[in-house]
Amino acid sequence: MSDTDPEFELTFLGTGTSIGVPVIGCDCPVCQSDDPINQRSRSSVFVKTPEVQFVVDTGPDFRMQCLREGIRELDAALFTHAHSDHIMGFDDLRRFSLGADDIIDIYATEDCFQRLKLAFDYAFNGENRYPGYLKPEPHLITGSFEVGDLQVTPIPVEHGKVETIGFHFETKGGKRIAYVPDVKVFPESSRKICRDVDVLIIDGLQPKEHWTHLSVPEAVDVALDLRARQAWLTHFTCRVDYKVIGPTLPDHIGLSHDGLKLSL
Amino acid sequence: MSDTDPEFELTFLGTGTSIGVPVIGCDCPVCQSDDPINQRSRSSVFVKTPEVQFVVDTGPDFRMQCLREGIRELDAALFTHAHSDHIMGFDDLRRFSLGADDIIDIYATEDCFQRLKLAFDYAFNGENRYPGYLKPEPHLITGSFEVGDLQVTPIPVEHGKVETIGFHFETKGGKRIAYVPDVKVFPESSRKICRDVDVLIIDGLQPKEHWTHLSVPEAVDVALDLRARQAWLTHFTCRVDYKVIGPTLPDHIGLSHDGLKLSL
Repeated sequence: MSDTDPEFELTFLGTGTSIGVPVIGCDCPVCQSDDPINQRSRSSVFVKTPEVQFVVDTGPDFRMQCLREGIRELDAALFTHAHSDHIMGFDDLRRFSLGADDIIDIYATEDCFQRLKLAFDYAFNGENRYPGYLKPEPHLITGSFEVGDLQVTPIPVEHGKVETIGFHFETKGGKRIAYVPDVKVFPESSRKICRDVDVLIIDGLQPKEHWTHLSVPEAVDVALDLRARQAWLTHFTCRVDYKVIGPTLPDHIGLSHDGLKLSL
Repeated sequence: MSDTDPEFELTFLGTGTSIGVPVIGCDCPVCQSDDPINQRSRSSVFVKTPEVQFVVDTGPDFRMQCLREGIRELDAALFTHAHSDHIMGFDDLRRFSLGADDIIDIYATEDCFQRLKLAFDYAFNGENRYPGYLKPEPHLITGSFEVGDLQVTPIPVEHGKVETIGFHFETKGGKRIAYVPDVKVFPESSRKICRDVDVLIIDGLQPKEHWTHLSVPEAVDVALDLRARQAWLTHFTCRVDYKVIGPTLPDHIGLSHDGLKLSL
C-alpha cells in the first residue's frame, strides 16, 4: 500500500428497491427512459480496502452486478436483513468459495441467519462441502466486529417487520462511512453511532412518504441531523428521476446510481 | 384466434446452469466472448398460447428476463424443482399479482412447495395480501392438469438429490412439447410420456459427463430414443461454445440460446 492508496473504496452495485427499475410492466417515464442512470438493480455495495473485499447484501442481481463491476474475489458478505431483494442471490457467492476448503465469511444477525438457513439450507447443513459449491462460514453479529482492516458496527434501525441493521465502517486512518439502505425509523441510539460520519449512504425511497422506507425529504433530514460530511441516497423506486430530483438536493447530498464509486 | 395463430409459442428466457455464462471470474474463451449467443442466464422458458401465458421456473435472472422479452402479463408459474437457480427470482412474480385480489397460480410438487415456502414464507403465510405484494395460489402437482388450453403432464426424472420433474404440454390441436431442463436419468416410464413429441427441450449440460446432468452426447441419445421431431438442448455451462458444438449435432437437434423463440 502506498500513501496514495485509498483506505476505503465503495462501488454501488445496485440502488433500486425490491422490484428494481425498470419495473416490469411499468410505463412511467423513468422506467421507459433509455438513460442508464435511471436503471437500478437491487441495492448492494462492494467495499474494497487494502486488506479486504466484501459486499453488503446479495440480491437477485448479485451475479450480474459482479460481472458488470469485474468483481473476481470476495472475502466476505455482510447482510443488513433477509428481505428477498437483499438475499436471493446468496447462492452466487459460490464463485468466491471455489476450492474444497475455501469458505466465505458471512456476517448477519440471528434473525437474518435463520432466514438464510431456511432458504439456503443446503449451503449451511454441512453436507455439500464440494469444490464449486457455496461454503459459507457464519459469523453472528452481536456487536462491533472487525473485517480485515475495518472496524464494523451494526446500526439497528426500524424497517417494516424484519429486524434490520445498517453498518458503520471505520478505517485505521479514522475515516467513517455508514451504509443504511433500508430504514424508516432511525433511533437516536443509532444516530449516535453515525454522527459526523464522512460518508452517509441512506435509504431515500421516493419523494412521497412510505411506511417502511424514508422518503427523499426524510432522508435529507436525517443526513442533516447526523451532520454527514457527504451523503448519498439509495434504494430508489421509479418515482425518482435522477436528473429531476438530483438538482433539488443540498450540495453535499446526492443521489447514488448503479456503478457509482466513492474513494476515501 | 385466427387459423394462422400459433397454438404454442415458447421463448427461451435462460439457457444456462446455476452459475450462468459468463461465469464470475472465469477466463475461458466462451466466458470472455463478446458474442451474446454465448451469454446464458439461468434456465427458464416463457410459454404463450391463445388462452394462457406462463413461465417454467423463476431463477434469479427472472426480472431481467421479463424486461428483455417484454413480458407484462403472466397467469401462472410452473416449477421443475427447487434448486436456487430455478426459484430464487420467485418474489419478482409480484408484478403479476398486483391488485389486492389478484393471485398468480403456482404449480409445483410437494417437495418443491416445501422449499418455496421455506424461502418465501411471507408470500405463503397469508399475512401479506397487499396490493403489489406476491400472492401465490398453490396448485399441488400430483398428475396431469390443465393450464388454460394446455394439458400438462409432469415428467419425473432423476437429477441429483432433489425431486425433479419436466413438463409435457399438449395443445388442443394435438401438438406435443416436452421441457426437461435438469435431468441425469430419464426413466423409461417418463420416456413413454415423451415419445414422438413434436419438440423436446432437454438438459445437455456440456460435452463431458456429469453426475447430475446429461452431457451433450447423452442428451442427443435421449432425443433419438424419444424420436423427437425436433430437439433443443439447454442448461449449458461455459464449456459449450455455441458455434463450435452446434454444427456437430444431427440436423433436427440444436443448441438453444437466450431469446430463441419457437412457434407451433
